[in-house]
Amino acid sequence: MGVWLVNELRMYDAVVVGAGILGLATAYHMKRLRPEDNIVVLERLAGPGMGNTSKSAGMFRSFFYSKTNLTLADTSIEFYRHVHEELKHDLGIKWTGYLWLYDEETYRRAEPVLKDMASRGVKYTDFTGEEVAQRMGQRRELSGDVEAKVMGLANVDYGVLVPKAGAIDVDALAKFYANSFVGMGGEIRYKTAVKRLVLEPRTSMGLPGEPYFWQEGRVVGVETEDGRVIRARKTVVAAGVWSIRLLDQVGVDGHFKPKKRQLFSVRAETEELRRLLYTKDLNPEGCMPFLILPRPRVYIKPVLEENAFWLSYADEFGRPFQLEDEPKAEENYYRYGIYPIVTKYLPQFEGRMPYASWAGLYAINTLDGQPVIFEENNLLVVGGASGSGIMKADAIGRIAASLYVGEEQAELYGGVRFRVSDLGMEKRRVEPEKLVI
Amino acid sequence: MGVWLVNELRMYDAVVVGAGILGLATAYHMKRLRPEDNIVVLERLAGPGMGNTSKSAGMFRSFFYSKTNLTLADTSIEFYRHVHEELKHDLGIKWTGYLWLYDEETYRRAEPVLKDMASRGVKYTDFTGEEVAQRMGQRRELSGDVEAKVMGLANVDYGVLVPKAGAIDVDALAKFYANSFVGMGGEIRYKTAVKRLVLEPRTSMGLPGEPYFWQEGRVVGVETEDGRVIRARKTVVAAGVWSIRLLDQVGVDGHFKPKKRQLFSVRAETEELRRLLYTKDLNPEGCMPFLILPRPRVYIKPVLEENAFWLSYADEFGRPFQLEDEPKAEENYYRYGIYPIVTKYLPQFEGRMPYASWAGLYAINTLDGQPVIFEENNLLVVGGASGSGIMKADAIGRIAASLYVGEEQAELYGGVRFRVSDLGMEKRRVEPEKLVI
Repeated sequence: MGVWLVNELRMYDAVVVGAGILGLATAYHMKRLRPEDNIVVLERLAGPGMGNTSKSAGMFRSFFYSKTNLTLADTSIEFYRHVHEELKHDLGIKWTGYLWLYDEETYRRAEPVLKDMASRGVKYTDFTGEEVAQRMGQRRELSGDVEAKVMGLANVDYGVLVPKAGAIDVDALAKFYANSFVGMGGEIRYKTAVKRLVLEPRTSMGLPGEPYFWQEGRVVGVETEDGRVIRARKTVVAAGVWSIRLLDQVGVDGHFKPKKRQLFSVRAETEELRRLLYTKDLNPEGCMPFLILPRPRVYIKPVLEENAFWLSYADEFGRPFQLEDEPKAEENYYRYGIYPIVTKYLPQFEGRMPYASWAGLYAINTLDGQPVIFEENNLLVVGGASGSGIMKADAIGRIAASLYVGEEQAELYGGVRFRVSDLGMEKRRVEPEKLVI
Repeated sequence: MGVWLVNELRMYDAVVVGAGILGLATAYHMKRLRPEDNIVVLERLAGPGMGNTSKSAGMFRSFFYSKTNLTLADTSIEFYRHVHEELKHDLGIKWTGYLWLYDEETYRRAEPVLKDMASRGVKYTDFTGEEVAQRMGQRRELSGDVEAKVMGLANVDYGVLVPKAGAIDVDALAKFYANSFVGMGGEIRYKTAVKRLVLEPRTSMGLPGEPYFWQEGRVVGVETEDGRVIRARKTVVAAGVWSIRLLDQVGVDGHFKPKKRQLFSVRAETEELRRLLYTKDLNPEGCMPFLILPRPRVYIKPVLEENAFWLSYADEFGRPFQLEDEPKAEENYYRYGIYPIVTKYLPQFEGRMPYASWAGLYAINTLDGQPVIFEENNLLVVGGASGSGIMKADAIGRIAASLYVGEEQAELYGGVRFRVSDLGMEKRRVEPEKLVI
């Protein structure tokens, strides 16, 4: 299926902008629901999931208070498990679990929410601070430490270990969707950057600068950077933060903003760090769980295949909303931000600097942190996953595909039904997340 | 009060960014509530209200279904009336009224909402299409017109004339607030562009790139384009669409986007147009009311002092969200957008081209079209007036000032109380506008 000029005359049923995880999951489910439709995915990079998808920490958890969050994540995780275990398509899933550390005060505030979740069948195990400290060689009592006080650090009084959580190979997941989509007859054009959405009036009058406001303009496809127009009945914009540029051009607000997130990889070069990395008995992988410190919520991912830890922190106030082509990790962010905190809790990291670091852009929904899926004038917007794009991608793709085929309810993996308009803007109905983590 | 370098060492109580209508009304009411506070307004242009404020059509109406809309507009209008009539400060108020034209179908849909408003004491007068057509020399029956049909135009079956509505001299209003603010001892620095908000940690550690996320960063003032730092206990960003740049830099979303709006001024050069401009008996000014056509809602403002009409249309889908220094009116927008519509309804405009045109940027709140007023880390955001900034400025200024002094309730003009958090983002509570106009 080569890219011929003659294709330009072809009318697709749908063009999907972006072969990141959201674009691919959406295209895959669209094709699954409408095998007869001609669907093309356009991607500016050379392969699937090579943009901000590839920068992800690649963690997932089925542990939320909000029904919206829980449903989107849990059904997606179950689908990934199905692909990995039953379809034997290796997605590199590791059930490391998540271990949240709490000080007394924060735990007491979280407790009613946790109990409520437990009563609904969400599983977790409580640990005392002593148990955690002993298993992981951690300091739990920081109140006597002047520096820790200045930094506002909290004691480790409790640990909450969540088993249905872990790591996934993001690259494998993106390729799974891409290959399955192509396998069903879908088309992906890489190295094809989209410049703009093409608007046309319902009935052209041949006026310069059409469509005018009385002409019922709608989106009829996209123009690529090299000047081709690819026409389609429906245009799906699922390009993560890059969607914002395309949407701004036509005056549509996706309600998400770009925010840089950084990861720093530190090798387990010492005996102490290796012992930490291979902490026993907390998960089936025989490694340290994904660990979230009490305050500030710096997190540490065990990466066995790299013999390393990935460290990060999601900073809010002061971190700009900024669209950058090549966001860079900042050495000082590790040195003065993450390092002094981590070493207070985990002295094993003393003197350890990252051997690699990178940064990506989250598409943050600044309203409620949930994905946004809606249609307007033949334009479908799929985005705003707010850093949970990997763990919710399958559900998001199914809901977007249901919108595409005009269904009011999407069927998520496992037969769970989800009202499509709940993630739209007009009748948006998402449950707030009460679990402060 | 010269701009000395020594001022840089001075700590203001508040710095207000923007001497447009929102910044000025806010600064005025802040000073009114806290006469002892040192408050400085910074403005990149040479005088008050010279940015997008000056591009406004300058119309107001106390005619909304939404209680939020009605309260903000009505109390502001009452204050303007008070200034104009009782304080004898000429604000150029002209009670032209608003005349909405409706076709049968749209009127029937609006009728229950109108009746509901009437029962709450909101005044208007109904006209038949014939009456309107006869008084204004209008065509009311377009259904036989092929071109009108292509353009989707509707008949004039009804008119709704709203008396508590009209025009205000925006420049006079901005100057009133500026002068009153300065008269109370407030300071305004013109030609002083703000480059960025200055963030500092609560306790500085002297680290490069402070504040880090564990340092409780907050806004301590602004840096101007010429590199001065002006420090203040509170920083108020009320710079219309320009606020977005400052807020993006610190990762705060004001939830508004810039959208161009254009005005075209056509002289009443012919006898027919003069007759239309001086339409009798519909308002105390003896002129045509501000006229809103049935569909699309092109509007026409009578401007007696210019012997002219201002024409416009607020286009939505397809009009980009774009921040421009010098937005331009587009000749074709008049020629192919407004002109063919207006001339169908009002043949008096046949052959008439604008002698002047200009464009400004609305700060559109894409959630609910209402203003946004909130505080975060000593930063106050006042914006998103969505094209109603002039008619709601006084109420917005009072609510923002109440937030500044820490009151939960603002007292609007006439003693009306308004919960400050209703326009914030966390506990936002605005009543949707049901009157489709």
